[in-house]
Amino acid sequence: MQRVLVKISYNGAQFLGFQIQNQGRTVQGYFEKLLKRMHQRPVRIHPSSRTDRGVHALEQYFHFDTHLNLTPERWQYAMNRAMPDDIYVHEVTFIDADFHCRYDCVGKRYRYAIYQAPHRNPFWSQLKTYEPQSLNIEAMQRAAQYFLGTHDFTTFCSQKTEVESKERTIYESRIEVTQDGIDFIITGSGFLYNMVRVIMAYLLEVGKGKRTAEAIPQLLAKKDRNLVPHTAPAEGLYLEKIYLAPEQLTADFGPDIKIHVKKSTQI
Amino acid sequence: MQRVLVKISYNGAQFLGFQIQNQGRTVQGYFEKLLKRMHQRPVRIHPSSRTDRGVHALEQYFHFDTHLNLTPERWQYAMNRAMPDDIYVHEVTFIDADFHCRYDCVGKRYRYAIYQAPHRNPFWSQLKTYEPQSLNIEAMQRAAQYFLGTHDFTTFCSQKTEVESKERTIYESRIEVTQDGIDFIITGSGFLYNMVRVIMAYLLEVGKGKRTAEAIPQLLAKKDRNLVPHTAPAEGLYLEKIYLAPEQLTADFGPDIKIHVKKSTQI
Repeated sequence: MQRVLVKISYNGAQFLGFQIQNQGRTVQGYFEKLLKRMHQRPVRIHPSSRTDRGVHALEQYFHFDTHLNLTPERWQYAMNRAMPDDIYVHEVTFIDADFHCRYDCVGKRYRYAIYQAPHRNPFWSQLKTYEPQSLNIEAMQRAAQYFLGTHDFTTFCSQKTEVESKERTIYESRIEVTQDGIDFIITGSGFLYNMVRVIMAYLLEVGKGKRTAEAIPQLLAKKDRNLVPHTAPAEGLYLEKIYLAPEQLTADFGPDIKIHVKKSTQI
Repeated sequence: MQRVLVKISYNGAQFLGFQIQNQGRTVQGYFEKLLKRMHQRPVRIHPSSRTDRGVHALEQYFHFDTHLNLTPERWQYAMNRAMPDDIYVHEVTFIDADFHCRYDCVGKRYRYAIYQAPHRNPFWSQLKTYEPQSLNIEAMQRAAQYFLGTHDFTTFCSQKTEVESKERTIYESRIEVTQDGIDFIITGSGFLYNMVRVIMAYLLEVGKGKRTAEAIPQLLAKKDRNLVPHTAPAEGLYLEKIYLAPEQLTADFGPDIKIHVKKSTQI
């Protein structure tokens, strides 16, 4: 058997999300349908991240195991031929059988895109979030920095989150001014359910003067989602980068950062 | 009664087209549903152009008649509140009762957007047409110019076209080099069914060296669609401008152009 690593991007607008559902368009559904046809049996794919409905991916990885004897280039070609035009396969590589897209993932970067204009632009429908109110970007920038470091993010994630530990480390959290508005960029060891969208909603409230940057440490300490009830819409959210090895993280953020290793089966 | 003129734009990706259908999303459907709710009876809207499934509009007009006593600003507000985020109402104005969006329309401009890149971009899915092959833009530019003037466009439209005369006047027909590829811009007195997409398909064949610019006069003269069987996809096509008065056309293209007036009820 050969383990195959696939790097893709997709426009989430017309997907119910990454994860396969009984009905409807999903990224996993398209790939598993193709792999089943090629293998004459079901083949499961394992992504680094399961993006929600409407969330985009500029970079996403998954792996699967195969006995088929195709080169990486043939895999890429076969996949791109079969995929709809809102999914693109950038690269296919062969990897060791002990590599796992989910357990070897030590970090992710998200980008949240907001445009500001006198009126809505229908051509950004489902690609950027519209915010007509003027924003205090300096205050948002200050607020973003309060999330840096290791915190329990119970206050800033969906109450539906079911994980043992809600502690995550944030390596990068900043506002970038773009041509049409702002992007929020956040890189962390991992993200809880809706975490980026809840943080984004809070930052927008800071930008509008309804909340303060300085309240964030206390909000984090209280571990209570009811204190931050809003969630920004999915449409502006992009999974931008997947860190599949600790060295990639230290290359970007220095040798002294705290790295969360999920893999329990290390020898 | 007051006749109301509405200027809109829409992202055609998720519409079955402008015209209302028994089922599914249409631009007309959204507006007539709102107007029915506001008037407590069906109200018909009349567009300048009925764009096909997947075709976008940067500028489109329609009119309707109402007895409701709202200002143009209130109409715009009410409409934008009710519309989905892939439709935007730019302006509402009151017009004379003898004005008709379709019969007073003396010209239209379309833009067809093509991007060229080593690989498909899923974020341009349904917004631009992908063309990986390199194109001879100089030859396409030359070909585009052969469509200028008054011609019978039977060769370059769908065989389903049911109109008395297939003669149209083209005021502008040119290739514009963009950051990511090329746009084809064509302005004419009117367009037959699929006409821009058939011309575009031909121009792409010229760009690839499969057809020549110089063959166009003869193809037009033969009045036979079978000679040009291809149709470029809808996704790259944008209705860009509607000319609602002869003076707008002469302002852009000079006083000597041939103007086709549809309105037969002029006093």
